[in-house]
Amino acid sequence: MSATLSSVAAYAGVSTSTASRALSGHPAVLPSTRARVEAAAAALQYQPNRMASALRTRRSGLIGLVVNNLRNATFHTIAETLQNWGAGQGYQVLVCTTGGDPAREAAFLHTARTHHFDGLVVAGSGANTDLVNTLVTDGRAVVTMNREVPGSLAPSVMSDYRTSARLATEHLLALGHERIGVVEGRADVTSGRLSDAGFRDAMRAAGVPVSPQLVACGPFVVDFGQQAAAALLRLPEPPTALLVTNHEASLGVLQVIAATKVPVPERLSVVCTEDEPAWAWWTPQITTVDNRADLLAERAAAVLLAQLVGAESAYPVSREELVEPALVERASTAPPA
Amino acid sequence: MSATLSSVAAYAGVSTSTASRALSGHPAVLPSTRARVEAAAAALQYQPNRMASALRTRRSGLIGLVVNNLRNATFHTIAETLQNWGAGQGYQVLVCTTGGDPAREAAFLHTARTHHFDGLVVAGSGANTDLVNTLVTDGRAVVTMNREVPGSLAPSVMSDYRTSARLATEHLLALGHERIGVVEGRADVTSGRLSDAGFRDAMRAAGVPVSPQLVACGPFVVDFGQQAAAALLRLPEPPTALLVTNHEASLGVLQVIAATKVPVPERLSVVCTEDEPAWAWWTPQITTVDNRADLLAERAAAVLLAQLVGAESAYPVSREELVEPALVERASTAPPA
Repeated sequence: MSATLSSVAAYAGVSTSTASRALSGHPAVLPSTRARVEAAAAALQYQPNRMASALRTRRSGLIGLVVNNLRNATFHTIAETLQNWGAGQGYQVLVCTTGGDPAREAAFLHTARTHHFDGLVVAGSGANTDLVNTLVTDGRAVVTMNREVPGSLAPSVMSDYRTSARLATEHLLALGHERIGVVEGRADVTSGRLSDAGFRDAMRAAGVPVSPQLVACGPFVVDFGQQAAAALLRLPEPPTALLVTNHEASLGVLQVIAATKVPVPERLSVVCTEDEPAWAWWTPQITTVDNRADLLAERAAAVLLAQLVGAESAYPVSREELVEPALVERASTAPPA
Repeated sequence: MSATLSSVAAYAGVSTSTASRALSGHPAVLPSTRARVEAAAAALQYQPNRMASALRTRRSGLIGLVVNNLRNATFHTIAETLQNWGAGQGYQVLVCTTGGDPAREAAFLHTARTHHFDGLVVAGSGANTDLVNTLVTDGRAVVTMNREVPGSLAPSVMSDYRTSARLATEHLLALGHERIGVVEGRADVTSGRLSDAGFRDAMRAAGVPVSPQLVACGPFVVDFGQQAAAALLRLPEPPTALLVTNHEASLGVLQVIAATKVPVPERLSVVCTEDEPAWAWWTPQITTVDNRADLLAERAAAVLLAQLVGAESAYPVSREELVEPALVERASTAPPA
């Protein structure tokens, strides 16, 4: 059975209305009282319900989610997980895709502000720091995800890209691979930079030198994956294993592998990152590092909810939470021939 | 170059403000004048812009899109196509997924009403006729898609499921198949019922009897596809070709085909419906009937826009538009051995 607001009030030794005001951040509550109520809520694992949320003023019941696209399994898993959560909490989570365009993202954030959205989850372009911060200082609940927004005041929940690439590389090294090719995103994007660092961490720890001609770095598009894979497979001494940390490029890499009929895993081991259903349908099934998009969304929801019920303010506390990825071994990786 | 409001006004021989009032449905415009302006707009292929839309009163700039999920390529293609369109027209298209739950859909439609959304695209559960009709009689722009909403007053844009199944069956018949198995959705869902009819249309026209044991009809889930495919492949005389008209079940069917290693297309030809990227990544690439989700969304946008600019009222005109699917021949279909 879940705790009610009145059980929290009784535990803290205050009235229900004081408990409500304390949890909703009302300024007339003494800091010592607020602390006592928050401690009681934490001790009883109080889950604020729709009514408690509705006590806040100017509540629209709307939460916005910005994603770059809905094709990528990470983004649609985040969208569905947050919408399921919102349905349980009495919020409508409204999704906006932007094609990664900062101007379209800005237009949506502006709409969310003028329509009094209660909260925003931004898994977008990484731009629009000023708009994100305006929403934070407005008192809206805000959390950023997936891509860093430099200078943002909002807490963030991020996939641990560095660990993801490290786990994948360690897996290939443990199988005996040394000529490991990598297809990765650009260094000016958080995930590109951190994935590269994780790959190099593992190679360095194993004492295996990185061959620059085996590192293909480019944009987050299918075409780049095709070009990179074709170039790597044409090398006089091609890699015995391939790590793809750029999710969109993975689709291009797999198309080239299918077209050239290079035997996987006999001649080439392949690891993709960010799990998505298609990896498990491929023949052979593709080993992956799952970024746990469902868990990313659950953590973002928890961070958002803490702000929505006034248990904590996003501002001026900027925190980053990393979600641990998980290696999923399937049939596309094996020791080198 | 696109036509402007003033060129429409000049063509119709009225002032710009009269043209604007005529197109936005202002009651003070004479029916004969309105007809002349609408004819001019049609002749000049006038694309109303953001300013024209903004002339409407109580405009929120928000359009809601309801879909059952975002995993299915049809739904995320619809969402992205509509959001790209909205960005160009100055509307924010906000997406809500419901898991197909009529109660969650109702909650969203209620939110859209109270937050004065200008328009709604409903590609949802097929329930909530009363709420859809309330929005229509409120004067909101409404279009339903993908699944019929019985009793709805709103215009609809539908995939032509019957033609889709007929095209797929005709393709298999033309290759010489007669023992054609079909995995399809339930008859109480529009797409299930119409797909079955299209399959039978083609078989009847070819004079090939339908064997009841080759028809598997069930829910729109992966598990059903697995069970149905396993049962069909275990028959003493299994089908030489398989048509899957239930999109979600396709994933289950393909998993069973991969697991049992039945040679495709040598021993079994396979056609899936509703194109999605995974069909083209499969080995061999899967022949499909593309439901043209992009075109469905474009047509829905056009029908919505006609209402938004007041060129026509949804109410009391209920129209259904069918979008023609397209057979995409790939490697999974061939003549029987």
